[in-house]
Amino acid sequence: MATTATSVADVCAAAKRASRTLATLGSDLKDAALNAIADALIERSEEILDANRSDFDAGREAGLSSALLDRLALDEKRIAEVAAGARRIAALPDPVGEVIEGWRLPNGLDVRKLRVPLGVVAVVYEARPNVTIDASALSLKSGNAIVLRGSSTAAHSNAALAAIAAEAATRAGLPEHSISLVAGGGRDELAELATQTGVVDLIIPRGGEGLKAALKGVATVPVIYAASGNCHVYVERSADLESAQAIVLNAKLQRPGVCNAAETLLVDAEIADSFLPNALRALSDAGVALHGDARARAAAPQTTIDPATDEDWDTEYLALELAVRVVDSTTEAIEHVNAHGSGHSEAIVTRDTEAARAFQLGVDAACVYVNASTRFTDGGEFGMGAEIGNSTQKLHARGPIGIRELCTFKYLVEGAGHVRS
Amino acid sequence: MATTATSVADVCAAAKRASRTLATLGSDLKDAALNAIADALIERSEEILDANRSDFDAGREAGLSSALLDRLALDEKRIAEVAAGARRIAALPDPVGEVIEGWRLPNGLDVRKLRVPLGVVAVVYEARPNVTIDASALSLKSGNAIVLRGSSTAAHSNAALAAIAAEAATRAGLPEHSISLVAGGGRDELAELATQTGVVDLIIPRGGEGLKAALKGVATVPVIYAASGNCHVYVERSADLESAQAIVLNAKLQRPGVCNAAETLLVDAEIADSFLPNALRALSDAGVALHGDARARAAAPQTTIDPATDEDWDTEYLALELAVRVVDSTTEAIEHVNAHGSGHSEAIVTRDTEAARAFQLGVDAACVYVNASTRFTDGGEFGMGAEIGNSTQKLHARGPIGIRELCTFKYLVEGAGHVRS
Repeated sequence: MATTATSVADVCAAAKRASRTLATLGSDLKDAALNAIADALIERSEEILDANRSDFDAGREAGLSSALLDRLALDEKRIAEVAAGARRIAALPDPVGEVIEGWRLPNGLDVRKLRVPLGVVAVVYEARPNVTIDASALSLKSGNAIVLRGSSTAAHSNAALAAIAAEAATRAGLPEHSISLVAGGGRDELAELATQTGVVDLIIPRGGEGLKAALKGVATVPVIYAASGNCHVYVERSADLESAQAIVLNAKLQRPGVCNAAETLLVDAEIADSFLPNALRALSDAGVALHGDARARAAAPQTTIDPATDEDWDTEYLALELAVRVVDSTTEAIEHVNAHGSGHSEAIVTRDTEAARAFQLGVDAACVYVNASTRFTDGGEFGMGAEIGNSTQKLHARGPIGIRELCTFKYLVEGAGHVRS
Repeated sequence: MATTATSVADVCAAAKRASRTLATLGSDLKDAALNAIADALIERSEEILDANRSDFDAGREAGLSSALLDRLALDEKRIAEVAAGARRIAALPDPVGEVIEGWRLPNGLDVRKLRVPLGVVAVVYEARPNVTIDASALSLKSGNAIVLRGSSTAAHSNAALAAIAAEAATRAGLPEHSISLVAGGGRDELAELATQTGVVDLIIPRGGEGLKAALKGVATVPVIYAASGNCHVYVERSADLESAQAIVLNAKLQRPGVCNAAETLLVDAEIADSFLPNALRALSDAGVALHGDARARAAAPQTTIDPATDEDWDTEYLALELAVRVVDSTTEAIEHVNAHGSGHSEAIVTRDTEAARAFQLGVDAACVYVNASTRFTDGGEFGMGAEIGNSTQKLHARGPIGIRELCTFKYLVEGAGHVRS
């Protein structure tokens, strides 16, 4: 990559210049570029696989865990999936230029609130090299230039992918430096990237808590921190118990290691004895370690349940573990969720409209479900096409971060010589 | 105020509890409370004026400037204006509960993106005591609890206003602690307020650069910094020169000390000789000190124009001063604006659709005007009822910050036992 020889500030400044042109391009050109990137990935997959082999061998020698090696590894099938992802993003409606709202003022001025690109988006990520393409496709679709900063573990893979994508994009007519890769995984470079005020418009970290903490300490440009999820399912007294059990099992088991999986089950005291014995046995049979309060343990004496500690209510297990608590009312459930949840995804199972409405109004979270699993919180599932992460913050983006959330807006105001009196 | 005896953290925690209830209230109750606050301000204006007299006398003894004393002073008329402002905010449509969009997923899940309050909004402000009521009214209307932190200069006035408003709000049925005032103007209290992560959802500073810098150094909760405005008017070659001159004069002169006033005039070289002599003479006659580049000075030799330095292009004068530059094209004008502007309000005067469109697409700012003065950037002018400030950042709020911008949203998802496969 040409970018290895230049400073992070230079890379970002070039990206900013590219972003000025990108912001003015029509959808046709951007979509053609994304499809050209997909074509190039397939055509040049041998190059990508060679580079990936270098990373993989170095990682194995360095003693990376098999989980990390699996996340690092590419093959023909994964490359095809990445290419297909870029094509799917190309097929989405363009968020840029959408009139969010518009009105005429009493003085005759016409105001339009127009969706426009942010400018330069930086994505900082760990082992998975596919993020190089996923993040680039989402950024270009939304009219942004992207600056990528991957981990040293995947340096060769990321360099090959970024070079192929950048070349295809430029050949398709996008400005040079629409896609840039900052080489080197050092913390100095991260700090330099995170302090490009007025040049980098947003940084999105995709990685573990260590990466987020490192950014928090230095960033002066806006950051959207991807979410952690301490999610709850609350089974209210009127619930269909069969449906409730299916939702609880799905929310915990379908993919336990992700942020929208359930971590605590709340059960209305009125149905604890009828619901918990079967539900907790099924969870236990599926290998879930349970941590219950006194009433939950008493309700299901046949099942092994550790006594829950205060810490359990605040823990995102991301594993086959679940905390269980019996509550006396929907109000108590809402209070528990607001006190211990991380504002990600919260579900109530009920047949009572009043309970459903109270939970929807009272729970302070990005996504509040009635009679559905928390696992649906996802840009793809929500019909947003793809996502670059999931936000639990309240400003700008909350929930899935898709191409719209990579945009800002501006007001276009048109007059006929209007002056203010 | 009861709050003077408790810690900032306690005040914020109580506000958070109030916010849980506030978020669920209907518009009727909130609007009645705002009108009750307006009534109470009028009824108890003697108390307010007494308190204000203490602040004013202390300020005069301490040697405050007459400008600061003027901002501090209240009288019957100003109190009536503040009360009328609260009534206007009550009359606005409620932003809370608005379905921003909604759709049904292929699997039958119904998704609604619903506007909801942020929770606890903190407003940190300097001398003007009217902000106590303006900010409270905007926050309550948008379903948020508010924590106010005024300056010690206006301590008595703010305490009287906040106590009267809080009492009226509670009597009208809002939860206690919907309005709180943090007494004491110390930097320690500012730091404590700015680090209430998970409790305070947003801080808005309303004051000078010193206040913003103090916040930037310590804040861990989200902050929206009100804008500075280095705004431009660009007169393109096809412009109606009479209309152009009216817009330039309005943008510079109508209220020079505010952020949406123009600071630089850009003129197309093709019309420099026909436009500048009259326009610059008119500005000069109105008392505007001019800083021009060589071509601007040559075009208007009859008018006194200092040579512009590089610094002039980046200066927000907020005074009767204007920088003037001649450019060769709309492209050059756009580049100048993007290089030197603060992303606030930018105007082109033109009769050419191509130039208008290029400027609208190319300029990266909150508000882009065609044939109108930059002075219209204002929540009131935009029909948003009122504003709590003006944002030049790109995330969450850009342009006027009104009651919608004091909200976030959540996704409500309803199913019939849906689980993810």
